[in-house]
Amino acid sequence: MSASFILTEIRAATMKPGDGSYGLIEDAAIVIGDGLIQWVGPRQDLPTRYANAARKPQNGGLATPALIDCHTHIVHGGNRAREFEMRLNGASYEKIARAGGGIVSTVSATRLQTEEMLLEQALRRADALIAEGVSTIEVKSGYGLDIETELKMLRVARSIERQRPVTIRTSFLGAHAVPEGYEADRYIDDVCLPALNAAHAEGLVDAVDGFCEGIAFDTSQIARVFDRARSLGLPVKLHAEQLSNIGGTALAAKYGALSADHVEYATDTDAAALAASGTVAVVLPGAFYTIHETNLPPIQAFRDHDVPIAVATDWNPGSSPLGSLLLAMNMACTLFRLTPAEALAGTTRNAARALGLEDRGTIAPGLRADLAIWDVSEPSELSYRIGQNPLTGHYFGGVRCN
Amino acid sequence: MSASFILTEIRAATMKPGDGSYGLIEDAAIVIGDGLIQWVGPRQDLPTRYANAARKPQNGGLATPALIDCHTHIVHGGNRAREFEMRLNGASYEKIARAGGGIVSTVSATRLQTEEMLLEQALRRADALIAEGVSTIEVKSGYGLDIETELKMLRVARSIERQRPVTIRTSFLGAHAVPEGYEADRYIDDVCLPALNAAHAEGLVDAVDGFCEGIAFDTSQIARVFDRARSLGLPVKLHAEQLSNIGGTALAAKYGALSADHVEYATDTDAAALAASGTVAVVLPGAFYTIHETNLPPIQAFRDHDVPIAVATDWNPGSSPLGSLLLAMNMACTLFRLTPAEALAGTTRNAARALGLEDRGTIAPGLRADLAIWDVSEPSELSYRIGQNPLTGHYFGGVRCN
Repeated sequence: MSASFILTEIRAATMKPGDGSYGLIEDAAIVIGDGLIQWVGPRQDLPTRYANAARKPQNGGLATPALIDCHTHIVHGGNRAREFEMRLNGASYEKIARAGGGIVSTVSATRLQTEEMLLEQALRRADALIAEGVSTIEVKSGYGLDIETELKMLRVARSIERQRPVTIRTSFLGAHAVPEGYEADRYIDDVCLPALNAAHAEGLVDAVDGFCEGIAFDTSQIARVFDRARSLGLPVKLHAEQLSNIGGTALAAKYGALSADHVEYATDTDAAALAASGTVAVVLPGAFYTIHETNLPPIQAFRDHDVPIAVATDWNPGSSPLGSLLLAMNMACTLFRLTPAEALAGTTRNAARALGLEDRGTIAPGLRADLAIWDVSEPSELSYRIGQNPLTGHYFGGVRCN
Repeated sequence: MSASFILTEIRAATMKPGDGSYGLIEDAAIVIGDGLIQWVGPRQDLPTRYANAARKPQNGGLATPALIDCHTHIVHGGNRAREFEMRLNGASYEKIARAGGGIVSTVSATRLQTEEMLLEQALRRADALIAEGVSTIEVKSGYGLDIETELKMLRVARSIERQRPVTIRTSFLGAHAVPEGYEADRYIDDVCLPALNAAHAEGLVDAVDGFCEGIAFDTSQIARVFDRARSLGLPVKLHAEQLSNIGGTALAAKYGALSADHVEYATDTDAAALAASGTVAVVLPGAFYTIHETNLPPIQAFRDHDVPIAVATDWNPGSSPLGSLLLAMNMACTLFRLTPAEALAGTTRNAARALGLEDRGTIAPGLRADLAIWDVSEPSELSYRIGQNPLTGHYFGGVRCN
């Protein structure tokens, strides 16, 4: 039992569901002990049993649950700046592909690099997120597309949390793209499913993901991956309806997925299905912005059906080289017209749910003491500001890490 | 005379005009002495007279000219997060105005605050830019709209450079908005021109700016301000063609303005006029993004007529709460389809020109040793990355400041 301490001179956006849009408490007290939140409420209501606990005044800062980036690809080799530049200089996708661009270049770089090299780069990316008050990061495989490299990516992802104050949740994304020389079904049989078995046997998989799209895998191929996940007792999630509607969202709902991600082309019917299955819709405005997508995700349908909406960076080297979750929140408001309260719920409470985590995402007794403290006048400022970082304090499991 | 030293193990994007898109030198040496760049070139060509100078190896980093943010409003009171939130919750502009929102709220906050309070906030904003390798920041007045507060804002702007390693260039923007209780012409006569005289007499004005728009001042009103600037020997610049085309760009060209800024609604004819007057077109993608503008500035016309293009944050609390010049570069590429080389020229060489500064903006002998050093594999990465800051070193007048 570590001694309890109390954060004072603090406001708290608890993000408690049903407690107003932010669950805001002015002049709050937050009692932390044993890595958990022991008590939170108005300071004047602080129970006398905490009278002797140490006070840590926070200068009027705003506490929120630490942020959660529930969709990233931060383990990968290289970058695609050259391809970005070629495209802006007028090169066609075909020309870029001939020059070795596209996902193939990331797969090649990721296969070539050692675990140490991949980890060094992934740590820098994790550090950028942690510096913004992020305490939980989901990390996907999917740039290996061979058994060995898929496992290597997941091992690197697991290593991040041994070196940094952060929780990593891994998603196996063997069904990310069809590698050259393969036909999709044979790739699923010969590489993806065996890789999933091997990764699971090593304890490397927290969830199973896929990319359901015309340029990747169809619903029947994804269903085979999901069936394997089910037989291994693993939850699923899916990149669905990003570029077109081919039924991925409905499939995700059918399998009770934790989340359906992107969902620009999802329909009202899809939203109803997600609601029925308790699946979170994860919106990824960084990719929308980068690829000049114009079809907006059906935010109002998600609201109408009470589908929880999460917001993430989708940090990846191709369609979303976005290294800021705060900026993803601003983009979600500016591009998708989420309210600032929805954006903050999307990187806290609903992001936790998208990862199947019940021990974090709001400030409430019994939950992990993962907290971010901000120099802002009100919670909406976190989404209003663009490219700024007002973090002044950060607790991970009750331990100050910033 | 301070002793010279040499940056080695470095690549240099000199941004020298006509020297290739980035003027890139692999394995470069940069000799710095007396606050200036003494020599730059391939390391193997280093003259023997520098044989004994100290070496400062830079670990393979990429040197660029320090960045220049040539259009900001970083001196202001308060923020407009609440208005941002109200709008996303469906409030009309009228309702927001009735609740005290809009530019009026910033004017009120700026009038109320002391110089010390305004400076404290401005320094934090300057620090965010400096942390991204910015060494020169333009700062405008324009949230006073009375003589006293316009001068206060400019004094605060000047104070920034006494406290931080940065050059500040001030622009008098008395003609920013028509304050309540005034008619535009009377405001120009009774407030704007007297404030300009007084600010100039105090040495507070480096250039004179205006907002030429249906909701602000027309060309004849701006012309009167520009005439006064001319009689005081001050250069001019203009917010022109942001929301409509009412002739601001042509007016700016007629007065030989340093820059015409925003210019979403400028035409091919306007571009030809800017070219003839040697005026820089400053594009401000943060405002375009925030206000959901859809009319793109005529980038191809600027290219065709050889109009220099600069890129800036337009950091202001209403239409562009954007605190990252690197993000402005990414937005210029993603939203306006500038090439990464154009974006970097836009925050170095052309930004210097937009401020009338001939002593900076490229890496060349005789210029100020204002340099940024980045952990990137190629210059395009600076624009490709979103919401990330790869700065590893920063020299201001030859002195390391990061």
